[in-house]
Amino acid sequence: MRNVPDGGAIVYCEGAFNTPNGKTAHGLVRFTMRYDVIAIVDSNHVGKDAGEVLDGKTSGIPVVGGVKQALGVAERAGKSATHLVVGLAPDGGRLSKAARADVKKAIELGLNVDSGLHDFLSDDPEFVELARENKVAIRDVRKPPPRSECHFFSGKIEEVTSAKVALLGTDSAVGKRTTAWKLVTALREMGYTSELVGTGQTAWLQGARYSLMLDSLINDFVTGEIEHAVHEAWSYSSPDVIVVEGQGSLLNPAYPGGFEIISASRPDAVVLQHAPARRDYDGFPGYPIHPLSHQIEAVQMITGKPNVVALTINHENIPAHEVDTTCRLIQMLTGLPTVDPLVHDMDPVLDALRPVIER
Amino acid sequence: MRNVPDGGAIVYCEGAFNTPNGKTAHGLVRFTMRYDVIAIVDSNHVGKDAGEVLDGKTSGIPVVGGVKQALGVAERAGKSATHLVVGLAPDGGRLSKAARADVKKAIELGLNVDSGLHDFLSDDPEFVELARENKVAIRDVRKPPPRSECHFFSGKIEEVTSAKVALLGTDSAVGKRTTAWKLVTALREMGYTSELVGTGQTAWLQGARYSLMLDSLINDFVTGEIEHAVHEAWSYSSPDVIVVEGQGSLLNPAYPGGFEIISASRPDAVVLQHAPARRDYDGFPGYPIHPLSHQIEAVQMITGKPNVVALTINHENIPAHEVDTTCRLIQMLTGLPTVDPLVHDMDPVLDALRPVIER
Repeated sequence: MRNVPDGGAIVYCEGAFNTPNGKTAHGLVRFTMRYDVIAIVDSNHVGKDAGEVLDGKTSGIPVVGGVKQALGVAERAGKSATHLVVGLAPDGGRLSKAARADVKKAIELGLNVDSGLHDFLSDDPEFVELARENKVAIRDVRKPPPRSECHFFSGKIEEVTSAKVALLGTDSAVGKRTTAWKLVTALREMGYTSELVGTGQTAWLQGARYSLMLDSLINDFVTGEIEHAVHEAWSYSSPDVIVVEGQGSLLNPAYPGGFEIISASRPDAVVLQHAPARRDYDGFPGYPIHPLSHQIEAVQMITGKPNVVALTINHENIPAHEVDTTCRLIQMLTGLPTVDPLVHDMDPVLDALRPVIER
Repeated sequence: MRNVPDGGAIVYCEGAFNTPNGKTAHGLVRFTMRYDVIAIVDSNHVGKDAGEVLDGKTSGIPVVGGVKQALGVAERAGKSATHLVVGLAPDGGRLSKAARADVKKAIELGLNVDSGLHDFLSDDPEFVELARENKVAIRDVRKPPPRSECHFFSGKIEEVTSAKVALLGTDSAVGKRTTAWKLVTALREMGYTSELVGTGQTAWLQGARYSLMLDSLINDFVTGEIEHAVHEAWSYSSPDVIVVEGQGSLLNPAYPGGFEIISASRPDAVVLQHAPARRDYDGFPGYPIHPLSHQIEAVQMITGKPNVVALTINHENIPAHEVDTTCRLIQMLTGLPTVDPLVHDMDPVLDALRPVIER
């Protein structure tokens, strides 16, 4: 993995921290190997610890009211802030006027800008000119590679000898990426080599060495780019296990994801992440989540084999004292090892994967 | 439907007619409401009737050796040639040197150019300048709408009161589009109003009034653009039946298609097109096509209801005298009405759809 971070990051999340629009910032508070995270900017939570706000766990990352205050935090800690990471997803994809002004101020203060926005800052003449004047770089994390560098599916995936595990989910925003990292970490702790193939901008921001931006790709190249990223992970790192981060879910009305991941990465095993207390698909009230058994069947219908080997649980809206019982119940009903990766250790999942890894 | 064609078309298919790379030209020979097709350019088949080469059926469209010869055909027939349609898909997506020269010649001769290429001619300064000089238009059929005009899935599909039928397939290049048009035509002949929502460039070239280019879209917008096109077909035309053209197939390794069509158009019924004699997925030897029963189950697992109501057959590699038996056998094995739309009439399919249309 990358041992040298890109730099010290101020994560800009004004008005969106601890809301669904702050997903990218949340990922960075929880875990990143790409940056040393110095502070979160959101005037709604000034003075609090970002991890406390999010998960009730101290992270050592303070929330501050603006970019200048964040630079003050860096100075007092003897750290160097090098990047402003735009870690919010405004509705409609465009920065508000106030947010634009904040990003401009950051550039004028000499910070490089990494943006996960749908609208590319590097296509905005005002930002481009300002970045040039201040000798800083703008990276649009979602910007897809140019067409000429994109790959079509070729079948070279068959050369990959690493065990391939897809971390899919029963909905979007259900914790697939967090669980995927937990799995990679657990595998490494067990002495296996493992790489994550990230499929969204947050995984890249967190330091995934191999990745693609699934939702920004031209549709035609989706399977080819997945195949290529998995093949690259194998040919450069040849790890024992490649874990592929899922996107969306098979049956989500707006984000039917995972099909291309299944068809192009051809996983040996699938771990399925599920939020038992969620009723409707994320963002689509009135579209009830299909029963878990139906979802497992759907995955196996598409993979063509019974390779869902374990379930992982997102405990949202489940009281802490009911998490164990929930997992036990689901395990009894499905016959599959079931853990909550934020509470339990991943051993049962590793046990379930062992036949695939040690084949 | 469009009653006024865009003009008289010369279809450029040099070296590719009657090969898989000539798919777009084939569609235009068989059927289009967008153009009056004057001639096909391909020096390999000069002097033949395009329909004879393709299907053994006279089409009245001659194959000629060059653009000038095609203009001669137009003149002799008292027709006006207005468009060169680039109807070939070169491997790698780029025009050869010779093909570039031919397209340039066509522009110099005053023809507008409609191109289905992956590489956009309207992004090529040489073509753009030449088109300007000669006052002709270049339309890149695959060019996706700008991001600012793309739609996200919103759920407005629930407003659509037309019956929605998805014409899916068990593989790519299996005849989904041709069958979809046959179905629209058969519905109209029965006195229903019907519109096709095309999902590829050929459907547009054939005159589909509502369409999107699925494989050129940014992945994030795929469901929203499908929903929007179906919703548009309903709000402008409110037909009895909207038929949505499928793409790829659920289980194809490189083109896993249909998921977004299912999730975003939310079909009331699915008609599934299948080539019984095909062994491996189109273009991917070694990836055997999943059994038909598995494919039907997979579709119904994803739609969440038993709504595959009929099967349509592509008779490639089936001797003519075995087509009837093949259909009867499949009908007996699956319990679903089964026809070959190029041989049989579509009545059994219409009967199967009636409960959905007349609900």
